[in-house]
Formats: sequence, structure tokens, C-alpha cells
Amino acid sequence: MSETGSDPSYGASKSAALRITVLSDAPDGPPGIDRLDGRAEIVLAHDEDSLRRALPGSQILLVTDFRTDALEAAWDAADSLEWVHAASAGVDQLMFDDLIESDIPVTNAQGIFDRNIAEYVLTQILMFAKDSAHNLVYQQAERWVHRDTETIEHKHVLVVGAGSIGHAIGRLCRAAGMQVSGVARRAREADDVFDAVYAQTDLDALLPKADYVVVAAPLTESTEGLFDAPRFAAMATHARFINIGRGAIVVTEDLVAALEANEIAGAALDVFETEPLPTGHPLWAMDNVLISAHMAGDFIGWREALIDQFIANLSRWQDRQPLFNRVSKRYGYAPSQGVDESTPSASN
Amino acid sequence: MSETGSDPSYGASKSAALRITVLSDAPDGPPGIDRLDGRAEIVLAHDEDSLRRALPGSQILLVTDFRTDALEAAWDAADSLEWVHAASAGVDQLMFDDLIESDIPVTNAQGIFDRNIAEYVLTQILMFAKDSAHNLVYQQAERWVHRDTETIEHKHVLVVGAGSIGHAIGRLCRAAGMQVSGVARRAREADDVFDAVYAQTDLDALLPKADYVVVAAPLTESTEGLFDAPRFAAMATHARFINIGRGAIVVTEDLVAALEANEIAGAALDVFETEPLPTGHPLWAMDNVLISAHMAGDFIGWREALIDQFIANLSRWQDRQPLFNRVSKRYGYAPSQGVDESTPSASN
Repeated sequence: MSETGSDPSYGASKSAALRITVLSDAPDGPPGIDRLDGRAEIVLAHDEDSLRRALPGSQILLVTDFRTDALEAAWDAADSLEWVHAASAGVDQLMFDDLIESDIPVTNAQGIFDRNIAEYVLTQILMFAKDSAHNLVYQQAERWVHRDTETIEHKHVLVVGAGSIGHAIGRLCRAAGMQVSGVARRAREADDVFDAVYAQTDLDALLPKADYVVVAAPLTESTEGLFDAPRFAAMATHARFINIGRGAIVVTEDLVAALEANEIAGAALDVFETEPLPTGHPLWAMDNVLISAHMAGDFIGWREALIDQFIANLSRWQDRQPLFNRVSKRYGYAPSQGVDESTPSASN
Repeated sequence: MSETGSDPSYGASKSAALRITVLSDAPDGPPGIDRLDGRAEIVLAHDEDSLRRALPGSQILLVTDFRTDALEAAWDAADSLEWVHAASAGVDQLMFDDLIESDIPVTNAQGIFDRNIAEYVLTQILMFAKDSAHNLVYQQAERWVHRDTETIEHKHVLVVGAGSIGHAIGRLCRAAGMQVSGVARRAREADDVFDAVYAQTDLDALLPKADYVVVAAPLTESTEGLFDAPRFAAMATHARFINIGRGAIVVTEDLVAALEANEIAGAALDVFETEPLPTGHPLWAMDNVLISAHMAGDFIGWREALIDQFIANLSRWQDRQPLFNRVSKRYGYAPSQGVDESTPSASN
């Protein structure tokens, strides 16, 4: 990668020519944004108005606020845009028809959060098996209460969403001695992680056999509301449901009802239809539910890692190399193997 | 293995000749004891008096209460004893001079608890990394509090006690992406689990480098009080201490002081100098401590598994084959590779 310091004229011409708008919910831009110093003119935006002022003349938009809908609102100001990078795993909030129909490639942060999300999922599986939440309740009460607990060895994890994150989850669970299979849009060959990868249309037949059902899918038209009352009813009563994908993949009131009726044994939820989860929501107080604040992927240093990943892709863009982590705008996620740019139909 | 049902005369002669005393804290004997029906005359005991009545004429003593000291008290009644099996991993409470000096072999439950203890340790490591205890506290308060968390990948686990349990812990932590080294009585070659196995005398030099220190050692003369104020001071301030061995390996008041002074970042404790841990003990209320009720190894079905393991060894005894899981009475634990019975000096 060419450094501006070692080749001032080249660097200067690049930064003079290049204008990057950064859309962030942080007033001073995202942490680590100074890593871009010298590479381009950086213009910060944090809402529709500031984005509308920033976009004209910008070739690149870096979006670090995955909840934003400002781009759709300010889209008419994007007169020079050639590339949108979403520094998040999910791009569901970002996408809208004009962007989807445009020739502008969208890339995402695939890979960055995989390991931490996998560790989070294994943590929640182990906490269910070892009844760890009750250890803490007994500790608070200073009560010594011995229980026998479950092992996770040979237990069956069904990972719904067999992409980059799903594979990381599967790999770690398999390493820990579990059986792992996956569910994808279409059935695929088994690989080094999954015993089998089934089609989403086979989900109903798969759910009864799983000890743990893990949602690692993107939010798309085909996954929205995927987990509803019949799906929870199909799960084994001893099974636990873990969601690190998106809240809207679950019909929350059906999940609450299934938990209340003991149709499933527990749920670990990092994402919710409404975030933050509102005070007073029944999920907070449920004994068999583990709640975290949309943080499963957020390891210490993730913000800086996102900027470094963007810079790596920026170098490819400047060198006219194919971008990595291109999102299939039709399906709303980046395929694990990336999108072949020579096949335009796969990327829109 | 010969079944009494298929060879009545042989079975009858065996059960007529064989008398097994079972020392258990359960009035009706341990769960699964009916698995011994037809194999021998079974006599139950639960304290010194009943043990004194049961022992005469018994060739075998099966001890399922690992906290008992009744055997030492009733030892003079053991007029026919040929074998003592302790259905526990630790035999520290059971051992006394007359038994150690006798020719009677002692076997233990090595192997049975390994996997569940390893899962417990990985659970506690992950709960520290993911700050899971605070997730539960925030959930109780219905508070949405996002935090960035640690990953465990490439973190260094130092397992003190490189026997059967220590290896299971190391194996699982390594599978989960951690670096693992061990500490044993003497230094040994690296193996498929441990990067290196150091001598206990090198502990002070090893402690500063560990992110997690896990005690998986038996309680012996050389491990009693091993973790005291200087040892906690030697650990990194970000490190966590996990004890699944025995409480008396730790000087508890030194551990409390180290935690209060933030000399170490946390502790997960399954065993204590006094069990149950008394109400009002400062450990209960510490924010950076995870407490469980001496249950790390106790998977659902462990009692029955212990009896099955004893029966497997009983078949060897009846067939005059060498017993497995022989405890080195000198060192107080069963070496991972077992004790070579042809070398009597190794087993007393």
C-alpha cells in the first residue's frame, strides 16, 4: 500500500482528488477516523441536513451509523458518489430502492465481528448449560445451592444464516465439541464447519432436532419475521433460541408467548425489534432469558478495526482493484465468497 | 464381562464370596447403587458407627462421600479390606497414615468429571471476557448498557495441575483458540494440549504472563496454601483466577485482599476452604467474583456414571486384572497414565 509520506506528490494528488463523506452518529466522527488523515478530504455528517451539505463532490461515502436512514433522505445530493461502504455487518437500514437500482457498489464490514460474535454465542450456550444465571442469583442471595448441569458435548446447534458470521459460530461450537449444521437461502454441500447446509425452506423439519437454534442471518425480505409462533412451537421444549442477527427476524410477541408457555427452554437475545429494548418490556424480567445491549460483536478496538478495514478496501479502490466485501444489493448481504464483479447480475 | 444372569453358578459364587461396603452420605446409598445388584453383598454405611459395623468381612470399600473422615475412625474394623475405591476426583479427605502405609490400593474417579469441569472453566473465562455478570445485573435493572468486551482468542491460560482434569481444561481452551500451558509437580515435555509443562517451582515466573490462572491441582502437602498474597501479587492486574481444585489450595483471606486491592481482575470459585461458603463471607458480595456450589464437575447423570466406572474396575478386580485409576498414595492423586502396579514404590 502506497503511503503518502513516502510519495508526497502521488499522495497529494490522491487526497486533492478524493473527497470522502463520513456519516457517523458521533459529532467528531467515529473513533479512529484520524487514520484517514492525508488520504483524502474528509467531510463529516451526522444527519440528513449535514449529509446533504457533505455529499456533493464526494466520491465515497463511509457509513458508520448502521441505524441511519439519512442517506435515502439526502440521496439527491449524491452527485459524484462511486462507492458506499457500510462499516457494519448488517446493511438492512441503509438500503433503499434508488441505491439498490444504482450502479454504486455497497461494501460492508464482513469478517470484523465474526470472532467476537462466535465467542458471545458460545458464552450464551455454556451459560444455559451450566445454569450460570442462577449461580449469580444465588450468589446475590448468599445461598449455596448445588445443581447438576448439562454438558454441551455432542449437542446439536442449528445456525440459521450460513455466511461469514454463521461459519465463525459453527467453527467455534464444533471446536468445543458440538454438532453443527447450517441453514442458508439454498442448500449447499457440507463444508469444514457444517455437517450439512440446508435450505431455509426445510427449517420446519430441522427445528425439532436442535438443542440450540442460533440466528445469524441478515434481515432481508425472506428472513423478516422468520421466527414466529409455529417455528417456536416446532422447537424442542428443552431447546434454547439465540439471536445475534436482527430483532425483526423474530416476531417478539410470539417469542415471549413461547417462553411463557415453556414451549422452548430459554432465549439469549442481543438484538431486538426496538432498540434499546424499552423499560417494562416483558423480556427483561423473564427468568429464562439472557439480554445484552446489541454488543455481541463489539470487541475492544472494533471501531478502529472498522476504519482499518475500510482503508484496506480504499487502497484497492484507488488501485482500481475489485472491492472486497461487496454486498449483494438484491439479497442484502455480502456472500461469504464475495461477489464476482464480472457478473453484474449478482450484485444488484 | 460375565453377567450373573448368563452364568448363575459363577455369579452366585462371586456374590456369595464378595462383600462390598458402600460409604455414602445418602441414607439409601448413592443413586445408581442398584446397578451392583447381583454382583456382591452390598452393605451400606453413612458414618463411623455404621461403617464399623459394615466393614468386617468386606473386601471392598466404595466411598461416594468425598468429605468423609469416617474411614480413619473405623479403620480397626477393616479386617478383610483389599481395595478402596473413592468415587471422587480428590481423595484428600479420605487419606490417612494407616491407609497410606497399607498395601491396600486406592482408586478414584479420574476421568468422570473432566469434560464438565473443562466446560465450567471455559464458561467462566468467557463470562469474564464478555462481562456477562454485568449483563445480568443490567437486565435485572432493565437497563440497556452497551459495552465493548474482550475476546479470548490467543489469550494465555496457565493451568496449575496438569493431570487428567487439567488436560481436559487445556484441550477445550486450546480448541477455543487460547494459548495453554501447564504447571505440574515436575517439568515435562510439551504434549498435544500444553505448549509447555513447567515445574511448580517455576510458578512465580509464570504467573505474570497469564491472562487466566486455573487451579486444577489436587490438595496435597505441596499445593496446600499455594496461592497466597505473593502469588496473587505476581499475577497481572487484568488476570482472573479460577479454582476448581480444592479450596485449601488458596489462602482465602489473601485472595479477598488481592481482589479488594485490584491486584487481580476477578475470580471464579467453585471450591472453598469451608463448604458451604458461609453466609456473610466477603466473597459472596464481591462484584468481580463468580461463585458456584462445588458443582463444576457434576453433570446430569454423574452419580450413575460413578457407579458404572466402579463396576468396570470391579470386573477387572474379579478378573485379577490391574485396577485402573490407582491413586499414588504418596502424592495423593492418580497420575494421568495410571500407576504401574509392578513398581510398588510408585503407589505408596
